[in-house]
Amino acid sequence: MKLIIGNKNYSSWSLRAWIAARAGGFTFEEIRIPLFIPGSRERILSHSPSGKVPCLIDHGLAVWDSLAIGEYLAEKTPQLLPQDAAARATARAVTAEMHSGFQNLRSKMPMNIRKDYAGHGHTPEVDADIARITAIWKDCRSGAGGVGGDYLFGGFSLADAAFAPVCFRFRTYGVKPEGTAGEYLATMLANPWMKEWETAALAETESIPSEDLYG
Amino acid sequence: MKLIIGNKNYSSWSLRAWIAARAGGFTFEEIRIPLFIPGSRERILSHSPSGKVPCLIDHGLAVWDSLAIGEYLAEKTPQLLPQDAAARATARAVTAEMHSGFQNLRSKMPMNIRKDYAGHGHTPEVDADIARITAIWKDCRSGAGGVGGDYLFGGFSLADAAFAPVCFRFRTYGVKPEGTAGEYLATMLANPWMKEWETAALAETESIPSEDLYG
Repeated sequence: MKLIIGNKNYSSWSLRAWIAARAGGFTFEEIRIPLFIPGSRERILSHSPSGKVPCLIDHGLAVWDSLAIGEYLAEKTPQLLPQDAAARATARAVTAEMHSGFQNLRSKMPMNIRKDYAGHGHTPEVDADIARITAIWKDCRSGAGGVGGDYLFGGFSLADAAFAPVCFRFRTYGVKPEGTAGEYLATMLANPWMKEWETAALAETESIPSEDLYG
Repeated sequence: MKLIIGNKNYSSWSLRAWIAARAGGFTFEEIRIPLFIPGSRERILSHSPSGKVPCLIDHGLAVWDSLAIGEYLAEKTPQLLPQDAAARATARAVTAEMHSGFQNLRSKMPMNIRKDYAGHGHTPEVDADIARITAIWKDCRSGAGGVGGDYLFGGFSLADAAFAPVCFRFRTYGVKPEGTAGEYLATMLANPWMKEWETAALAETESIPSEDLYG
């Protein structure tokens, strides 16, 4: 398997697929294509029909989009999804909600692991996104649909992969949820795959000025 | 089962879940909540934790987001996804690409079944979205990942549900793809579930002025 990803500092979609592959125990070759530089789009298109990262290549089959990659990996490694049907449905619901929503958070608080932008990015709409995300985390860990454990649904699942970039965002922008959601954030930031990704992000030298919103 | 949906004229996400449920042969009660009127958000929140439509309720379990609903239904009715693993991966890839992308098309050509806005909404970015969508349709029907048949992957699948709103958009805004993509569009617009939804949309009386972009 090969996984095509973008800059580790910036590419939140790439992180989702990469950490799902790590969590599933897959061995894969990583092909990192720095984004927004001359030739990057052509390089991505040579692997990924959508022209976007991430894209998984498995024996010549291209599977693009982090959500589809997650489902593809989960078919091979079912522990990437909760085993209980109701919990699995909830895990997919919060994953899909993250996939298509939270546009305000995305635009005002883009993933940017190297920066400390504490206090920046807040608007009423962003704060509403943060409130919804922390409610999801709390519900999944302790309430409806949850199955207990350190992660959203027991062991690390595709739902945790979906929220992995938000965890880095919360740290960058100084968002500190309380209670169960705060515990979940701490668990994620201490996760060894998150640490591995973070270390690589810190070692990157490329900058994307349009993503460095606050200096 | 109950399916919570918005206005049939406008709610593209609702259509995706609704037509997947129809295609899967499920019997469900439809709860239509007209959007953007006083009380609608509270009514939705009484069913759907995300505050958004669609939401499926099955024996008290809430499954929200059209993509998660689709996967939930496909676990009960596997023919909603291609049976071949590679085709299934491609179907999920194009479904997820539609789910998270095409923001320009969404904003300039919102679904609006009752209107004739032929010629409106085009920008270079929208035209790039249209080109990508028609390329997907062509690839799925005739090329990589495709399995033949009238729909994207043989029989009607979640991938067709994902693109159902785009088909109505193309008609409203006068987008007329040629060749295989045009044949697919014609197939979809003649589909009996699409017709059923369309008839109900035409019978609706509510308007959402912010969605009626071109008069």
